[in-house]
Amino acid sequence: MTSGVRDPREISRWDEEVDVLVLGLGAAGACAALEASRAGAETLVLERAGGGGGTSAMSGGVLYLGGGTGLQKACGFEDTPEEMFKYLMASVGDSPDEEKIRRYCEGSVEHYDWIVAQGVPFKPVFHYGCSGEPPNSDGLVWSGSERVHPFVDIATPAPRGHVPERPEQAGPLLMQKLCEAVEKSPARIAANHRAVALVQEPDGSVVGAVAESFGEQRSVRVRRGIVIATGGFILNDAMLDAHVPLARRCQLRVAADGDDGSGIRLGIAAGADTANMDQASISLPICQPWGLKRGILVNAQGQRFHNEDDYYGRVGEWALFRQAGRCWLVVDDGVHEKPDYEPFPLAAAGDTPAELARELGLPEGALEATLELYNRHARNGEDPLFHKADDYLVPLDKAPFGAFDCTTENSLYAAFTLGGLVTDADGRVLDPEGRPIPGLLGAGRSTSGVPSRGYSSGLSLGDGTFFGRSAGRVAAGS
Amino acid sequence: MTSGVRDPREISRWDEEVDVLVLGLGAAGACAALEASRAGAETLVLERAGGGGGTSAMSGGVLYLGGGTGLQKACGFEDTPEEMFKYLMASVGDSPDEEKIRRYCEGSVEHYDWIVAQGVPFKPVFHYGCSGEPPNSDGLVWSGSERVHPFVDIATPAPRGHVPERPEQAGPLLMQKLCEAVEKSPARIAANHRAVALVQEPDGSVVGAVAESFGEQRSVRVRRGIVIATGGFILNDAMLDAHVPLARRCQLRVAADGDDGSGIRLGIAAGADTANMDQASISLPICQPWGLKRGILVNAQGQRFHNEDDYYGRVGEWALFRQAGRCWLVVDDGVHEKPDYEPFPLAAAGDTPAELARELGLPEGALEATLELYNRHARNGEDPLFHKADDYLVPLDKAPFGAFDCTTENSLYAAFTLGGLVTDADGRVLDPEGRPIPGLLGAGRSTSGVPSRGYSSGLSLGDGTFFGRSAGRVAAGS
Repeated sequence: MTSGVRDPREISRWDEEVDVLVLGLGAAGACAALEASRAGAETLVLERAGGGGGTSAMSGGVLYLGGGTGLQKACGFEDTPEEMFKYLMASVGDSPDEEKIRRYCEGSVEHYDWIVAQGVPFKPVFHYGCSGEPPNSDGLVWSGSERVHPFVDIATPAPRGHVPERPEQAGPLLMQKLCEAVEKSPARIAANHRAVALVQEPDGSVVGAVAESFGEQRSVRVRRGIVIATGGFILNDAMLDAHVPLARRCQLRVAADGDDGSGIRLGIAAGADTANMDQASISLPICQPWGLKRGILVNAQGQRFHNEDDYYGRVGEWALFRQAGRCWLVVDDGVHEKPDYEPFPLAAAGDTPAELARELGLPEGALEATLELYNRHARNGEDPLFHKADDYLVPLDKAPFGAFDCTTENSLYAAFTLGGLVTDADGRVLDPEGRPIPGLLGAGRSTSGVPSRGYSSGLSLGDGTFFGRSAGRVAAGS
Repeated sequence: MTSGVRDPREISRWDEEVDVLVLGLGAAGACAALEASRAGAETLVLERAGGGGGTSAMSGGVLYLGGGTGLQKACGFEDTPEEMFKYLMASVGDSPDEEKIRRYCEGSVEHYDWIVAQGVPFKPVFHYGCSGEPPNSDGLVWSGSERVHPFVDIATPAPRGHVPERPEQAGPLLMQKLCEAVEKSPARIAANHRAVALVQEPDGSVVGAVAESFGEQRSVRVRRGIVIATGGFILNDAMLDAHVPLARRCQLRVAADGDDGSGIRLGIAAGADTANMDQASISLPICQPWGLKRGILVNAQGQRFHNEDDYYGRVGEWALFRQAGRCWLVVDDGVHEKPDYEPFPLAAAGDTPAELARELGLPEGALEATLELYNRHARNGEDPLFHKADDYLVPLDKAPFGAFDCTTENSLYAAFTLGGLVTDADGRVLDPEGRPIPGLLGAGRSTSGVPSRGYSSGLSLGDGTFFGRSAGRVAAGS
């Protein structure tokens, strides 16, 4: 056994004994604890911080749900599990986890009701004009690429960003309600406890964990199952170097202190497989307000590289992973607006495209050629290169011209990791031969889930809460 | 313990007992076995195929070596370990393994002599005009991006592709000589033996392996160390889906039957960490003969995306990972030549760029704009977008125009994986906390090595043989 694993024979005395042990009290861990304890399992949650919340409490609180939820209906939108499934299968990359996506879409309406039943309020008002995280307390938003090429032709679009009712950032409210529900449940919470090892029998079964609290080690024997729900690894530079080095360039790492990959590493030490460790959600919310989508994003060659009307999480992926974070949003006087997010400094301005290009240090003639081609097609309401929707197609020909800085050095790239332990659709952690490691489960960003490759706002909280619940149930039934 | 690991108490009787066990008789395994047995260790090599060679024997046989090797000197080239180090640090991506690269560069001259001493011949003739794998028996070639932007300004270029003397593909000769050396050594070879599990003590030490041969299982107790050298995972679709799904689109998987990731999975089951699992060498040898570098590679938007004079392994990475394998090499009548490699069908032809673009289905006006800008700069011997060297800069303006098909569907993408088990510079396999798993070593494409991200021809055989040797020595001394 490796350094994150202990032999049960080393444990002279168990300090505690429970049915289900949950590691981490973020969204996934809270849901796992609620379902495990409701299934009758004696449940303990270890949280390394002084209280619950984790990264979920620092997020925008958006849950990607659909298929015809109560909130969607109340706002007058139709949706079906099948359309949601088609969208997700197409948008989460080259190797979507079909079984997880199927289960997620089919269970989404019930899951919304369950979240509401935990006390999380949603205001039945649709908010137009942002991609997740509305600036007020409205409950439903577009939060992905549903209406954007090519997805608009693949699945009937519906807004699926479900946002707890709160004037601003809704993550704290979501976690306040979920943590209150855990506190009311029979599950116990041990804050300031960080798991440092799993206890594993020679046959592979995980039968306990060792935790540290203020320098003291405590051992917990677990009769049924352990759920790893400790978050991702965006704060661990060595892990980023090994898997997704470009993410180190992002200025904002969306993370509570716990996102150092510790739970993933515990699983690996116990023989678990990992997947999609090179993937991350990279938000570059430059095109907010949406009017800025009328500008064009150009790379260091002065070329466009993506449809600017796409969800900012996909724009960020393209900008970071394909352009190494070197790009600018070019606007003319007609479409210039103040960006909603900071920092997006104006990198350069000029009376002509050529002057702007010189200021930016772009190759001579390149931006001019890009604009000429773009404008020619935009006048016809067309974008044959990237298929930006015609709402945002206007020729950029009104002086002066400007460019917002979208380089990693000078603007907001908000990143968190998507890869993690391999789990089946029930949340069982798998070894590299695809067999469950007995007694070990996982959920949330410690695992590779629905948002394995390609992101829409709310997928991480949606997946974490949904599969956190099922991991809790399965652990309780083990 | 997971399904690839056995508890020693399960082993009722050991069929065999050795000091060092090497899994796999490709280049890395052969070198490990040679050094282990020369260090006085009783050494056994298990090879799942009927004989040695592995993927190395199917390769071009190029070894990336430098720093002033005997062959470089004989061909009149100067090189130093420092220039080689600077080139590799810059070219293998965003998180190079500095310690491995340092050791590799400093040991490269000695390693070349050692390879020669194993009976591998190199003809002291430099061959100009190809990127690895000369069409004759010449010994030294350019095999990377040394003379290409930006590397030409970072390190003094030198050709470092060392090719065993053989009229065509040199991999079989390399492996014939290395396997003969193993056969002459005290090390024993057991062909038709495939390792199916490691035997691991509860304290984490690896003390043996279980192998299958014609349906029978045999257990081997190992006193000192096991070296995993079973190759990569390009033949394992499930692993590709989990880590590098786009590689599935490549028509040619450079692999012997063994490259199903089995050794990597054995290591994972024993608690090993992995790195760079999303990385692969992707060769798209379209610009051979080199005269074709005068053409321009364009994507589905009719844009250029990389300097066409780059080494074909980097061109392939950009084409597959950034353009999803959708691109074409556009030539005019002045630079048209028959490609050296097949299949590269002519996808379209036309009397004007516009006609060619229509045939290719490119957006109206895009290819024309790209050519206009390219030609304007090429007339001045400049390529401010991608810095192609002026040897290859000629305006493309002579009708007729043509486009070679470089899509994954219709042309040759040759792929193998670069990610694998994490090892230290001595070849010790590490757990996720960075601590060696006692008794477990690895080398070659079962591990993440020098070519972790970003490839030059010969790096995999170079790294595999070099670190295979050191893993063998370290295993013998364990």
